[in-house]
Amino acid sequence: MPPFDSQSRQAHEARRARLATLLGKRPALIAAGLPRPRNYAANLYPYRASSHFLYLFGQPLRGAVAVYDGAAFTLYLPEPQPDQALWEGVPPSFEDVAAATGCPVRPLARLPASVRGRAVATLSAPDVETCLEQSRLLGREIRRGVIDVLDAPLADAMIELRLHHDAAAVAELRLAAEATAEAHRAGMAATRPGRTASAVRAAMESVFIARGMTCAYPSIVTPHGEVLHSERYDHELCDGDLLLADVGAETPGGWAGDVTRTWPVSGHFSSTQRELYEVVLEAQRRAIAGVTPGTRYRNVHLLAAQSLASGLVDLGILRGNPIELAADGVVALLFPHGIGHLLGLDVHDMEDLGDRAGYAPGRERAKEFGLRALRLDRDLQPGMAITIEPGIYLAPAILEDEALTRVAGDRLDRKRLAAFADVRGIRIEDDVLVTESGREVLTDAIPKSISAVEAAVAG
Amino acid sequence: MPPFDSQSRQAHEARRARLATLLGKRPALIAAGLPRPRNYAANLYPYRASSHFLYLFGQPLRGAVAVYDGAAFTLYLPEPQPDQALWEGVPPSFEDVAAATGCPVRPLARLPASVRGRAVATLSAPDVETCLEQSRLLGREIRRGVIDVLDAPLADAMIELRLHHDAAAVAELRLAAEATAEAHRAGMAATRPGRTASAVRAAMESVFIARGMTCAYPSIVTPHGEVLHSERYDHELCDGDLLLADVGAETPGGWAGDVTRTWPVSGHFSSTQRELYEVVLEAQRRAIAGVTPGTRYRNVHLLAAQSLASGLVDLGILRGNPIELAADGVVALLFPHGIGHLLGLDVHDMEDLGDRAGYAPGRERAKEFGLRALRLDRDLQPGMAITIEPGIYLAPAILEDEALTRVAGDRLDRKRLAAFADVRGIRIEDDVLVTESGREVLTDAIPKSISAVEAAVAG
Repeated sequence: MPPFDSQSRQAHEARRARLATLLGKRPALIAAGLPRPRNYAANLYPYRASSHFLYLFGQPLRGAVAVYDGAAFTLYLPEPQPDQALWEGVPPSFEDVAAATGCPVRPLARLPASVRGRAVATLSAPDVETCLEQSRLLGREIRRGVIDVLDAPLADAMIELRLHHDAAAVAELRLAAEATAEAHRAGMAATRPGRTASAVRAAMESVFIARGMTCAYPSIVTPHGEVLHSERYDHELCDGDLLLADVGAETPGGWAGDVTRTWPVSGHFSSTQRELYEVVLEAQRRAIAGVTPGTRYRNVHLLAAQSLASGLVDLGILRGNPIELAADGVVALLFPHGIGHLLGLDVHDMEDLGDRAGYAPGRERAKEFGLRALRLDRDLQPGMAITIEPGIYLAPAILEDEALTRVAGDRLDRKRLAAFADVRGIRIEDDVLVTESGREVLTDAIPKSISAVEAAVAG
Repeated sequence: MPPFDSQSRQAHEARRARLATLLGKRPALIAAGLPRPRNYAANLYPYRASSHFLYLFGQPLRGAVAVYDGAAFTLYLPEPQPDQALWEGVPPSFEDVAAATGCPVRPLARLPASVRGRAVATLSAPDVETCLEQSRLLGREIRRGVIDVLDAPLADAMIELRLHHDAAAVAELRLAAEATAEAHRAGMAATRPGRTASAVRAAMESVFIARGMTCAYPSIVTPHGEVLHSERYDHELCDGDLLLADVGAETPGGWAGDVTRTWPVSGHFSSTQRELYEVVLEAQRRAIAGVTPGTRYRNVHLLAAQSLASGLVDLGILRGNPIELAADGVVALLFPHGIGHLLGLDVHDMEDLGDRAGYAPGRERAKEFGLRALRLDRDLQPGMAITIEPGIYLAPAILEDEALTRVAGDRLDRKRLAAFADVRGIRIEDDVLVTESGREVLTDAIPKSISAVEAAVAG
């Protein structure tokens, strides 16, 4: 159990009180989920409770189930196993958990009676085993990623709460940002030609382990930044390479950081790398400046795309009007993903609820390449946390695809682009909190300008 | 995919040929299993294929299913997703996989037809989702850890093969041992009073990450060695503490190392710590010397227990005849677990098959405290890999349990034991390969004697 003081208890009590207000008399069940076996039953992946449960209770209580009966919450916990104290340490007693959370605790065996014969809303746990148990308990099929009519008010209430981070949430995001910053500095310092990407990954992730944290998502540490979510770490780092690192911490309470930096293995950007890096950096600067309460996030995306287009036109890689190049999807050939996403207890916050969380009611994902990868399209409001992560990629998977590139016509100068071949992929990503007056970049302490990055890399 | 040369391909082809010989005309299905979501569908734990699949194919092919039709093997693979090249990199083609494995490859969509209407043996995959899919495919319920009559010949054939490590397996175990050795040396060097256990854990696990490896099991790094499988890392390391580290590497091919060392945080054992450490070390020395082909593993356990008893009698902690103290379960109050287990692709090798793997036909787990925790009771044979891991623990969970300690009567001198309070838990564990002439300790390069350990700890 992460340390849990009375302040933290109060924050979670307040969240449950707000959820109760939103739910009224509608009962609900939130399951923490079960540990998942890796290769056999007793060899488990590190336990991660469901984010909805963590949001309401703050503690990764294995196998716990919370029930809201239309008036109050009760926590149902598995009974300690006979040998548990010897093998895992003395488990917290039900009284301990009740005192820490401010919520009454009862044994899991009494859970079925508490929901029997009632229409109880729920959200699917991340693990299939718990989904099957939810199905048995509630007498209807609970499937991962499916929100039934009965469950919709609960989903919408959780979205309403989790979209706007309270002070306790912001404190956790700051913790994650701080660890993430240290990891990126450690990664830069550990980079040298001849090492493998895995050595840099080790330097970065060990920062999290030393702080009792973990990775919020599988790290991307690769000289092949053009593969957007590469999980290979075996490439040797060469003198002229850029290294792209998309690595973020998760606090013991479950809150995420999510940062990308791209730095030269040698410690010095080539002139072509420098030119494209500045284009991405300027797009990020403009996009961040565009983060204000009331702004539609999709427009932040378009702003970034236009800024990229403008820079690419200046370099002779694209031809035409930047606004049209962005609108027509020509920029998407080099910037194929969205400008960012919600950030919170999940690195893509509430992605388990699908676009119901990321897209405002009435808004739908675009169909076209590029924009269809945008995970968020809401009007920004104070308390929201988002990422801003423009990039430029020379991705063969796109550039060699005639159907995709047809849209460009002669507006993409491939010969000119070929001169930038020593850039495979550049992404620059920060975590941004929307404030009343605009925004705060939570991850500002990480080297980002050309000079700061070059100074931080050992080379 | 880990690198895969023709030698490795031949080793896996030979394994499949041996399995085919054992199965004869009985068809069988082996599933690699699916990645498991962590907090939402797209945020996955690092993929681990089932050990049976890795044993036969050597590669962690997500969602792959192998079918033996009574004559030959076919691999069924999911079709690449449209955007896969962009997001994850160019996936190996079916032809690539066929060339790398020496096994024909077909699309997963054609799997159902290959097993329809046939009585096909299988082993449950580690993840529930795949077990459900196996159940649908084979028309009967496949449950984790349950071996039906139809499946028994397949289980027994896999046990027969995996019990005796071939040259390729031994090479992998050596790789794991080498990385594990480096991690323990790094952990000793990183230990200083005032640091937390998590800092030492970071130093150890980063060795694996840098080598493109992972942990074979959740690391134990704790000054509270009396909690046998502690997963807490937040304790501050104090000057007089012993630190117990049970940490092992897993190679990219999936093979495990499993080593425990116990070292003084200050770099110097106290006299009481030194005395009990020597008792454990002597028990380990004798147990390792007792590892010879033909020896019943249970007798190695008893040998170690007797050696511990003898040392504890010399120190005045126990009274009586060491052989009786071991046989009566008095030693088990201070050494409550087994002397070790099988080691291979799983750190407790083939534990998914239950005691069918660890216990020879006709042998059953003992009922009594201590011996009931012994995971292996076979006659040792050349090619088996095992751990030897005696320990002494001052565990309140045992010593404060009247029902458990009654067996000791006046044979446990609690007052004398209290003088050793600065020892909470000591375990010394190595990985041992049974050879024709006796044994080889695979993890011998790790500091173990008092003087070697003290020299390796920074202090």
